[in-house]
Amino acid sequence: MAFRIRQPVRHPDVDRAGIVYFPRFYDFFHRALEDFFTAEVGIPFWDLGDQLKVALPVVRIETDFEKPLQHGDAVTIQLTTLHIGAHSISIRYDVFRPNEAETAASSTIVLCCIEVPAWKKAPIPPEIRAAFEKHRV
Amino acid sequence: MAFRIRQPVRHPDVDRAGIVYFPRFYDFFHRALEDFFTAEVGIPFWDLGDQLKVALPVVRIETDFEKPLQHGDAVTIQLTTLHIGAHSISIRYDVFRPNEAETAASSTIVLCCIEVPAWKKAPIPPEIRAAFEKHRV
Amino acid sequence: MAFRIRQPVRHPDVDRAGIVYFPRFYDFFHRALEDFFTAEVGIPFWDLGDQLKVALPVVRIETDFEKPLQHGDAVTIQLTTLHIGAHSISIRYDVFRPNEAETAASSTIVLCCIEVPAWKKAPIPPEIRAAFEKHRV
Amino acid sequence: MAFRIRQPVRHPDVDRAGIVYFPRFYDFFHRALEDFFTAEVGIPFWDLGDQLKVALPVVRIETDFEKPLQHGDAVTIQLTTLHIGAHSISIRYDVFRPNEAETAASSTIVLCCIEVPAWKKAPIPPEIRAAFEKHRV
Repeated sequence: MAFRIRQPVRHPDVDRAGIVYFPRFYDFFHRALEDFFTAEVGIPFWDLGDQLKVALPVVRIETDFEKPLQHGDAVTIQLTTLHIGAHSISIRYDVFRPNEAETAASSTIVLCCIEVPAWKKAPIPPEIRAAFEKHRV
Repeated sequence: MAFRIRQPVRHPDVDRAGIVYFPRFYDFFHRALEDFFTAEVGIPFWDLGDQLKVALPVVRIETDFEKPLQHGDAVTIQLTTLHIGAHSISIRYDVFRPNEAETAASSTIVLCCIEVPAWKKAPIPPEIRAAFEKHRV
Repeated sequence: MAFRIRQPVRHPDVDRAGIVYFPRFYDFFHRALEDFFTAEVGIPFWDLGDQLKVALPVVRIETDFEKPLQHGDAVTIQLTTLHIGAHSISIRYDVFRPNEAETAASSTIVLCCIEVPAWKKAPIPPEIRAAFEKHRV
Repeated sequence: MAFRIRQPVRHPDVDRAGIVYFPRFYDFFHRALEDFFTAEVGIPFWDLGDQLKVALPVVRIETDFEKPLQHGDAVTIQLTTLHIGAHSISIRYDVFRPNEAETAASSTIVLCCIEVPAWKKAPIPPEIRAAFEKHRV
């Protein structure tokens, strides 16, 4: 079961060519991740440190950009779980333009679970694991 | 009648002190303006050049920052019209934190109407004027 | 004596109209402020909390935008001190396009000195005061 | 022969954890690319469309993030050419923290050459090819 958000492409997301400047895709993915934590994990992303003593930095990214996004496009960002290891989670993000079935971009982002403030590898807390398990492809 | 949007403060909006980095307030205001154009003017902000041959660059800003915004705050951005001249519109933006009646920040932003691509002062098109008239304080 | 930095306008600073999206001016001003602290105060801006137990949030902004900046313009950002009070500093920023004597934009930004982590008004530390005194107009 | 730029990590690059928010790495890479075009190709990146009738959108990214960057770090961004095909260039970017020999992050970014405004695959112009050939590892 995929988790989806929809959002418009905004003025500052777009460059002189009228299309989304590629690093902004990662902001879109991060919004989906924040909404996923609030809605599915039940802990706001910004409270992970305080509530669970963990952080989830990005350690690896692979992205394919297939079609440009334009200002005003109400794009769908889809989050699914590819893999959950002992200390890491691989998330797949797909971006869809309005009324299109093929992805405009797709990305695999690996998050590593670390203890804070020690900044050492930590096991993924069970409430996080459970939420990502439910969104495996 | 004020126009309002609500949106969460996101991870990249916040700085090391855990509060919104002040230039991001202008991104919030711009989102309210884009939504205002779509909902109230009936012309997407990004289509102004194509549809009406105008652009609305910012010529003046005054802002007071009273209270910090934090990651996760679902803030309300309120847009009202202060003044409409022949070639300019003065907009007031107020930001409210959740469940607070006093503003966290307030700003007056003056937009000048120009013809594109000539980049010369132009009268405000009637459909834009009408929408801002309806949202005078 | 004014403090100046020079920097190119970059791809993500520019919008679809090919000119700098106005909130990016505040990033430019903030870079000038960071460089001022390193060069003139002798304390990196990011160490103010650790070294002096203060922070300098922005409490008021006034800006006039006169001319657009374009991608590739090597712009000059000039910082001068307008006023130093007991707990606040008023800074003037002027932006110049290459080889132009009139400002493209000018802004007055008021910073308030607060104690951290208490987040209460604090006197401006003498090393900060001295550096800004030297750059009064 | 690698091409290198050095730049400080700035206030808005850093998140609440005090480290660079990962999409900002791509802004750093893009600055290196812009400087590469100005210095090595001899055509500013923002003039590619006007001068050569091409654009170079990103089609694929792979990045490994190994060590966090902190506010104030004067980081080095290194650009080298991995591969030049008929219509694409694979660039490797490495980020180094001050006085460290191991990379803090490394990324392969593939740019596709397209004709503008037709937005069709185009051969890489010879002046661009020549500059990237000189910076092969």
